[in-house]
Amino acid sequence: MTWDVLNIVGTIAFAASGALVAMEEEFDFLGVLVLGLATAFGGGIIRNLLIGIPVSTVWEQDILLTIAVVTMCFVFILPAKWINLYWMRFGNLFDAIGLSAFAIQGAMFAQQMGHPVIAAMVAAAMTGTGGGIIRDILARRKPLVLRKDIYAVWAMGAGFAIGIGYPQKPFPLYALFASVVIIRMVSTRYKWRLPYRSL
Amino acid sequence: MTWDVLNIVGTIAFAASGALVAMEEEFDFLGVLVLGLATAFGGGIIRNLLIGIPVSTVWEQDILLTIAVVTMCFVFILPAKWINLYWMRFGNLFDAIGLSAFAIQGAMFAQQMGHPVIAAMVAAAMTGTGGGIIRDILARRKPLVLRKDIYAVWAMGAGFAIGIGYPQKPFPLYALFASVVIIRMVSTRYKWRLPYRSL
Amino acid sequence: MTWDVLNIVGTIAFAASGALVAMEEEFDFLGVLVLGLATAFGGGIIRNLLIGIPVSTVWEQDILLTIAVVTMCFVFILPAKWINLYWMRFGNLFDAIGLSAFAIQGAMFAQQMGHPVIAAMVAAAMTGTGGGIIRDILARRKPLVLRKDIYAVWAMGAGFAIGIGYPQKPFPLYALFASVVIIRMVSTRYKWRLPYRSL
Repeated sequence: MTWDVLNIVGTIAFAASGALVAMEEEFDFLGVLVLGLATAFGGGIIRNLLIGIPVSTVWEQDILLTIAVVTMCFVFILPAKWINLYWMRFGNLFDAIGLSAFAIQGAMFAQQMGHPVIAAMVAAAMTGTGGGIIRDILARRKPLVLRKDIYAVWAMGAGFAIGIGYPQKPFPLYALFASVVIIRMVSTRYKWRLPYRSL
Repeated sequence: MTWDVLNIVGTIAFAASGALVAMEEEFDFLGVLVLGLATAFGGGIIRNLLIGIPVSTVWEQDILLTIAVVTMCFVFILPAKWINLYWMRFGNLFDAIGLSAFAIQGAMFAQQMGHPVIAAMVAAAMTGTGGGIIRDILARRKPLVLRKDIYAVWAMGAGFAIGIGYPQKPFPLYALFASVVIIRMVSTRYKWRLPYRSL
Repeated sequence: MTWDVLNIVGTIAFAASGALVAMEEEFDFLGVLVLGLATAFGGGIIRNLLIGIPVSTVWEQDILLTIAVVTMCFVFILPAKWINLYWMRFGNLFDAIGLSAFAIQGAMFAQQMGHPVIAAMVAAAMTGTGGGIIRDILARRKPLVLRKDIYAVWAMGAGFAIGIGYPQKPFPLYALFASVVIIRMVSTRYKWRLPYRSL
């Protein structure tokens, strides 16, 4: 139940972020739909592909698909002032919730399919960040997450925990979820970056 | 039978468009082959993936594969004057035929797999336009269809019709096919665009 | 056994090339990991998808995955002087070994699945070069192999040979492997290019 709510919040956040990037790039309304859907569902689709769940299960999520489409229509007509006001303030939190919920789910799927720990880590990172990478490629941007955002690392941390046998019961999972959200917000606040090295 | 002809025309149009983009981007002959094949078959491959048809069925279409390769070789050696003359004049019509035939087929596949209406719409749009999106990404262009071309909408309209139970018999399907071609040509002629909004 | 060694050399070469491109593009350490893994395993994943092998078999290659990760960590901390010195000198040879080993393997998989000759050719080219194409897309570069590198052609040649029934026994396969490596090195040395034509 609570899990469903987190999923919905994550889907809204990711659909909105795809829609906003599409508008920044002057895509038309179709582009808004495509980028929004790709951001919200693309990571899960690639995850399913990699861990061996039929990709077509995406169509069973009709409620999430509908919520994503409604979100994008809403963002498309929202006054620019509100977008600046609310997205800037709460967008990061929404995004962190989506990342955390999606990453934990992704890792659980990989673990249930009997794959090794590295698969749980990649599944977590892919579910949490793959949609954003597809969004950036379609918008012809360099994928943000690969360049200066530390957040895939927290997803992989959650994936590692689940891969080595973290208890998959409500309370421990909520604790893990909250930890990822908090550490993600802290790392945004203090602009933590991964080490990088340019040649 | 007639359906086969439409499929062949669509494959030729899409393979030629991929080959021409590759040549505009100064790709070599391999790039011409890859972009042509990706444009002609990429949309169907992603569609199969999304609706749960084995992707490897692509290899059963040997005749279409051969036609695509022959088309690309032909385009590669065609005098530039002829390209300008004929592609500019008939390219749009060919393209509209490919879009329409591919979209209707894609939606029928999705509907036969028992997926909801939205799947038929996405399958139609993906089969009709996915190849072009892959082509644009490989050529490092912003995907045209997401920015200023209304044509995916007609594909989705056909997908919607089939998803809600449009009769899948020869005559009604030809009528639907012709409608999509005509409305696509009209929208090109009058440069219709979807609403867009930039931030 | 020998085959395993070739596979390992190829994986190291491809992982290192992904890591180096990531560093050239100022990606962070996560970007280095993602580009390295995508280059080393992306081609095989797409190949599996196209010829109908479950994509999730990638997780059974734990040793190769570990080798790839170790390679990338190593490249990340290597002094720039050594990179210039050794990669420039031996990088091409490593890369040719990876291309050749991966292409021959890819074609053998396609052939064993009972697909036609063109599938063996595409599988060879995809296994050998698909990872590099994904790497270039993620790094927002125009895919090198589509523009001015002849090497996919040698992969397709090997694929053709295997598709039409080249004997799949150790000695003939090593001969084929060596031929592809040598012709690839020769074509790099003399800067052979495929014909191209710009509009």
